[in-house]
Amino acid sequence: MLESVHNPDDLKKLSAEQVPQLAAEIRESLISQVARTGGHLGPNLGVVELTVALHRVFDSPRDPILFDTGHQAYVHKMLTGRQDLSDLRSEGGLSGYPSRAESEHDFIENSHASTALSYADGLAKANEVQGRTDRTVVALIGDGALTGGMAWEALNNIAEGKNRRVVIVVNDNGRSYSPTIGGLADHFASLRMTQGYEQVLDIAKTALNRAPVVGPPLYEALHGFKKGLKDAIQPQIMFEDLGLKYLGPIDGHDTAAVEKALRRARDFGGPVIVHVLTHKGKGYAPAENHEEDQFHSLGAFDVETGLQSAKPGLKWTSVFSEEMVSLGSERSDLVAITAAMLHPTGLAAFAEAHPDRIYDVGIAEQHAATSAAGLAMGGLHPVVAVYATFLNRCFDQVLMDVALHRQGVTFVLDRAGVTGDDGASHNGMWDMSILQVVPNLGLAVPRDATRLRELLREAVAVDDGPTVVRYPKGVVGADIPAVGHIGGMDLLRRAEKDGRTPDLLLVAVGAMAETCCEVADRMAAQGIGVTVVDPRWVKPLDPALVPEAARHSVVAVVEDNGRVGAVGDAVARAMRDAEIDVPVRTFGVQQRFLDHAKREKILGEMGLAPQDLARKLIETVAKQTEKALADEPAG
Amino acid sequence: MLESVHNPDDLKKLSAEQVPQLAAEIRESLISQVARTGGHLGPNLGVVELTVALHRVFDSPRDPILFDTGHQAYVHKMLTGRQDLSDLRSEGGLSGYPSRAESEHDFIENSHASTALSYADGLAKANEVQGRTDRTVVALIGDGALTGGMAWEALNNIAEGKNRRVVIVVNDNGRSYSPTIGGLADHFASLRMTQGYEQVLDIAKTALNRAPVVGPPLYEALHGFKKGLKDAIQPQIMFEDLGLKYLGPIDGHDTAAVEKALRRARDFGGPVIVHVLTHKGKGYAPAENHEEDQFHSLGAFDVETGLQSAKPGLKWTSVFSEEMVSLGSERSDLVAITAAMLHPTGLAAFAEAHPDRIYDVGIAEQHAATSAAGLAMGGLHPVVAVYATFLNRCFDQVLMDVALHRQGVTFVLDRAGVTGDDGASHNGMWDMSILQVVPNLGLAVPRDATRLRELLREAVAVDDGPTVVRYPKGVVGADIPAVGHIGGMDLLRRAEKDGRTPDLLLVAVGAMAETCCEVADRMAAQGIGVTVVDPRWVKPLDPALVPEAARHSVVAVVEDNGRVGAVGDAVARAMRDAEIDVPVRTFGVQQRFLDHAKREKILGEMGLAPQDLARKLIETVAKQTEKALADEPAG
Repeated sequence: MLESVHNPDDLKKLSAEQVPQLAAEIRESLISQVARTGGHLGPNLGVVELTVALHRVFDSPRDPILFDTGHQAYVHKMLTGRQDLSDLRSEGGLSGYPSRAESEHDFIENSHASTALSYADGLAKANEVQGRTDRTVVALIGDGALTGGMAWEALNNIAEGKNRRVVIVVNDNGRSYSPTIGGLADHFASLRMTQGYEQVLDIAKTALNRAPVVGPPLYEALHGFKKGLKDAIQPQIMFEDLGLKYLGPIDGHDTAAVEKALRRARDFGGPVIVHVLTHKGKGYAPAENHEEDQFHSLGAFDVETGLQSAKPGLKWTSVFSEEMVSLGSERSDLVAITAAMLHPTGLAAFAEAHPDRIYDVGIAEQHAATSAAGLAMGGLHPVVAVYATFLNRCFDQVLMDVALHRQGVTFVLDRAGVTGDDGASHNGMWDMSILQVVPNLGLAVPRDATRLRELLREAVAVDDGPTVVRYPKGVVGADIPAVGHIGGMDLLRRAEKDGRTPDLLLVAVGAMAETCCEVADRMAAQGIGVTVVDPRWVKPLDPALVPEAARHSVVAVVEDNGRVGAVGDAVARAMRDAEIDVPVRTFGVQQRFLDHAKREKILGEMGLAPQDLARKLIETVAKQTEKALADEPAG
Repeated sequence: MLESVHNPDDLKKLSAEQVPQLAAEIRESLISQVARTGGHLGPNLGVVELTVALHRVFDSPRDPILFDTGHQAYVHKMLTGRQDLSDLRSEGGLSGYPSRAESEHDFIENSHASTALSYADGLAKANEVQGRTDRTVVALIGDGALTGGMAWEALNNIAEGKNRRVVIVVNDNGRSYSPTIGGLADHFASLRMTQGYEQVLDIAKTALNRAPVVGPPLYEALHGFKKGLKDAIQPQIMFEDLGLKYLGPIDGHDTAAVEKALRRARDFGGPVIVHVLTHKGKGYAPAENHEEDQFHSLGAFDVETGLQSAKPGLKWTSVFSEEMVSLGSERSDLVAITAAMLHPTGLAAFAEAHPDRIYDVGIAEQHAATSAAGLAMGGLHPVVAVYATFLNRCFDQVLMDVALHRQGVTFVLDRAGVTGDDGASHNGMWDMSILQVVPNLGLAVPRDATRLRELLREAVAVDDGPTVVRYPKGVVGADIPAVGHIGGMDLLRRAEKDGRTPDLLLVAVGAMAETCCEVADRMAAQGIGVTVVDPRWVKPLDPALVPEAARHSVVAVVEDNGRVGAVGDAVARAMRDAEIDVPVRTFGVQQRFLDHAKREKILGEMGLAPQDLARKLIETVAKQTEKALADEPAG
């Protein structure tokens, strides 16, 4: 049956009785396809019936269907002409998120959470201004994303537009990556794992059948996510209608019930919340039984067993994870904060070892940063571990609440640099630029596992301002030992030519050190004098850097951050300010949104492969030598 | 009596009967002192009794009292040894906000809204970790600040700490700058202006006397701010305790009632919300009767009449305000968004002329940006008007939600550059740096009123990505006409010397054009060849800039933004990338947090006064000339 569904219109032609069969086929196809490509399996298994219902009830794209954190849009893709997921997340293939270039049915490409309700408010206002009163805007948002303050800002505004047709579907699976809000994890889990859950579904059905569309409003949805099922199924107390009608809770795997609720929401004519209960990983035992995150996101796996082939090698995240446990044992004042990503950031081990000193604040980076400032004011040293791309969400808090107040807070940025597969909104290519502007802040970039351990220790020792340690996704390379030191910088290569000005100073930032060393070796082989330094701390710059740079004919900086405003610019500025006009060349990630592809491929296309960098720098040095000769006084 | 209060201990010695008299003295002192210095009068008149009660009940600084948006901390200053406000907001004098350097009683210097609850959560967690179970953390937050999502993130977390002593005082005056949430303004106003308000206070007293400390929880406070007094005084419906106990509503001008409520909250032993109703501007008729914002913030004024001496000159804000009204009349697809600052941003005129196309989203910059992206997707062109410093709060939304999706949204940044009096957190010195990293974004910086009108028109004509127009606080100078054009740039000065390479290209950014022209005139008078260009759009840089720069011996960029990562760095990078190694010198605001002082004073200290810049640049040009002569082939 699935093969006959090419678009939402085909879906609408199916009878209600055919839908469960279609859902089963979709689920089977999802499992077998994602087993080959990897991807966000758990979230999509949870929304199969819900997505089918959305497309049967609404008229996409006239009625836009907005996916918050679009990793739950695979089923939506399959129902809008994209059933073949075999090239998912590969270069040139389907994006792992909605993509405006792929389909008119896709709206939001951004996979940062809690934004969909704000888009919905804007789209609904636009419908109102332009008199398109028959269109409905639909937003699907998880219970986890409702912990983000931005969602609350949006609800507050949506509630004002009494005549704007907005249907907010809360996909309540009790989880973000891991259970929503760490402190309540056990409570949630026990509720979901017991027979109580089955009762919920029965009650939900009954409630739906008898509830008018003026049921308990907004708060209950929020309250439901906060307190778990317990309250959602015991709506003892109603209160005055805030303007957001409420429908639910609905069993999200009962196709008829979901469709019925959505039709009523659609026909209401104003903002409505539809509260749907789903199981992440539904219908695939290895996912359902996976305690950590129900196969939230994973690589290729074996369908029978659910097992992924273990990737060899030590990950950056694991190095951080181990070192945090040690630091926590050594220092009783060390506390850790995660924004709903305990496992992905590697803080789970710290949580286990030091359960009284871990805080999961929800998908709430702003609160993570500022509550960390409060913890620091109170005499502790917090470590806030987030993905680099999500630091953007608390820039103002890092600047004003932490740095202005000179609080000792350490931010650890995982997945920095080009991450590749997840596309534009997951690349950690912004942090080294925006952090440059923050006074009193120190920024450390380890090149290998040993330096990560060292720099983390140095960072948490700073108590009069914020420190940041950033490192890439994936497996960490072999250690690159220093062959000497220049000021506080590590000297990695030194190929001098007797008596003459050395040709090139190569400033290697973090994980690009490996590339830089290879570049230096290639150049040295051609008789070019190259010095390679790793500053370790790129902000503030080491005082020894500019004097060292002045000894060379050319300076080059190589980093895996956007080129604009990052370390390259900082080095060039330091030299200008010292009025040392040695030419500087800066290499990094092109300042544009990157389509999904493999990290190595992307770096290669940007000229950051060792052989390309070496060729380019050999040319640059040659030009400078030529110029110097031409400028020399004759004779 | 006021003179005998040197610290909170003195305050505690007063009898309850003495407190109203003290409050009256404080109010009188506030009015007469702020009449001379200017400042945030209205908010402080509203919290006189409340602040006295806080310091009588709690043991500051052991029990930290945190002020959200610290402009309501004047009374707190007076009660903690700082009664003399005569040097308020002057260089070297008292800050207009709490200041950690001033007093151990001050904690949060940041005047960005909605942060206090997050600090409180952190401080309370720190108390818990360190076993300081007898201390209470107190946060005072306005109803307006509760519209910020960050406050919701914090409440969600505070509610989890059942045994952490946090007292959240909601100062509900129904207003941010202007009434909280624009759409409900009339409704609020009518409730507050009628006899109903007096009834509220009676009911409040009764409610306090009989309510146990397990009254309606969290939601009612939120609900109260959202729906106004109507619901706060008719708590028909209770619901299950979320963990945040609720006390209120309390008449915030009844000293005994407030104290009583605070004592009960203090003794409860867990998180409590105390909902206090106050009048902004209370006790000073000109403020109470001031419809726009009850003297939220104003310059020196006459105590008798409340009248400020009108400052001559056209303000930047007024130019924007006028042009928006015209644009709105010309284009039916133009809509405007404010984050609770309709009047200060100059959008009030647009709101009056085009009432169906203005949205006040609350103090919610994140939602402002992303709902604007939604409006643009829906076919409209939104203009989001905010202070430059507040754009930092939606950096991720500008980057991911607007720019990645290539939506035509125009951000207008008022109070850009050094604003001075309000101290570190109000200077708009960050925007030109962080916006540089945003792909697809255009950034325009007008130098005068004519250019503001022009550039605003050019910005709203762009429909495939975000545009930004930024300008300073205060009065706009005389127009500076172009004497020619180089590419799309305005040529402002050209002093050539026949046949020779001109000495200096001066790139003038925005309002620094006036300074640059004066510098050029001074240098030209000494026979130095200077070209001054205003790029108008500083991102992307005009393609004509680098070739023009290559014709000069030195390039200098002058801007009123932090020096790190802003236009100076962009020009230097563009030259490096073109491999044109003409020396570049960049001038701007030092990258540090600035103490409050007059704008001109601050710029002067940073070497940005015309005479200092001219002297510096004359030296630079001389050095380059010398060097060029030395490098020239002999003969």
